[in-house]
Amino acid sequence: MSDTMMPVEFKKVHQLFSLGATGLIAAEYDGDVDIMPAGWICPLDYSPCKVTVVIDSTHYTRKLIEKSGLFAIGIPSVGIIKQVMALGTVTKTDDPKKLEKSGVKLLPVPMSEIPMVEGCVAWVVFRVIPEVHNEKSYDLFIGEAIEAWADSRVCSNGDWHFEKAEASLQTMHHLGKGRFFSPGAVFSAK
Amino acid sequence: MSDTMMPVEFKKVHQLFSLGATGLIAAEYDGDVDIMPAGWICPLDYSPCKVTVVIDSTHYTRKLIEKSGLFAIGIPSVGIIKQVMALGTVTKTDDPKKLEKSGVKLLPVPMSEIPMVEGCVAWVVFRVIPEVHNEKSYDLFIGEAIEAWADSRVCSNGDWHFEKAEASLQTMHHLGKGRFFSPGAVFSAK
Repeated sequence: MSDTMMPVEFKKVHQLFSLGATGLIAAEYDGDVDIMPAGWICPLDYSPCKVTVVIDSTHYTRKLIEKSGLFAIGIPSVGIIKQVMALGTVTKTDDPKKLEKSGVKLLPVPMSEIPMVEGCVAWVVFRVIPEVHNEKSYDLFIGEAIEAWADSRVCSNGDWHFEKAEASLQTMHHLGKGRFFSPGAVFSAK
Repeated sequence: MSDTMMPVEFKKVHQLFSLGATGLIAAEYDGDVDIMPAGWICPLDYSPCKVTVVIDSTHYTRKLIEKSGLFAIGIPSVGIIKQVMALGTVTKTDDPKKLEKSGVKLLPVPMSEIPMVEGCVAWVVFRVIPEVHNEKSYDLFIGEAIEAWADSRVCSNGDWHFEKAEASLQTMHHLGKGRFFSPGAVFSAK
């Protein structure tokens, strides 16, 4: 765990996922770890935070989730964009050394077998709420948060403060075809 | 319909909703129209595009959706932030004049009874795919796109081009507590 990662109150966790940022889905079963990028992640409930995430049946990561009933979602910063792209271009089914080759650095997480990816600015562990019809018909998984951390340099207890952070710590938002944006102007509605 | 709104190919519609932008959910039944802001909108499938959207049971808009089986999602630009906030602070249950008082200007849409909100940079009509368990247990609705348009000044056939557009045409992304951001730097992973 990185020393800037601070716990997030459960009632604030939904805010981590309301931005449409690209995520990294991580799972572990019996010592086997896989991590994949995902864009279709969305809050579903406030407290405890639930999320929906779409995970195609072809993904090795999904097989680990189906065995363990747990997954983590990291929100990567722009600083690790190359590693994120590498994780999305190879499947562990074809290359068991996928994680090592991607260049990600894994960090242990307290009370979780799923390691964190260094360079993520939020990291939340979820237990799956089993909904077999959604999983089989829509590849849609529902998770309930059980542990949550965010990087104090860009997020204080679930409130994002992109305006304070350098570019490499910003979140990345996929526009399609490998194009991304980072948050720009922050403003109030008042 | 505004004259800068151009049709979007069905296979590109999912890209309109992958940014986590604040949306406006609109519905109509028997001449009665309501519109509400929503943040928890997410792509679910590519072509035709399906989305998930979380709509609490207290919303008047939801009652119209349950009767008509249809809803639209608009993506408002920063230029109408005051109207978006107004739509989110009053329910039509309490004030039947909510839409008029919000200051939104409604525009007719071809082949749809649901009017468009002027100042939205994307507008997609969905039919509900009925999933009663999800609707009752999670307030989660699934829609399949049947018509889609986006504003040519900021989006060409589903590809967003924020870097070309002025600030008032950018999308707005809710950070919580009435704070928003707009897209900033656009970059490629290569």
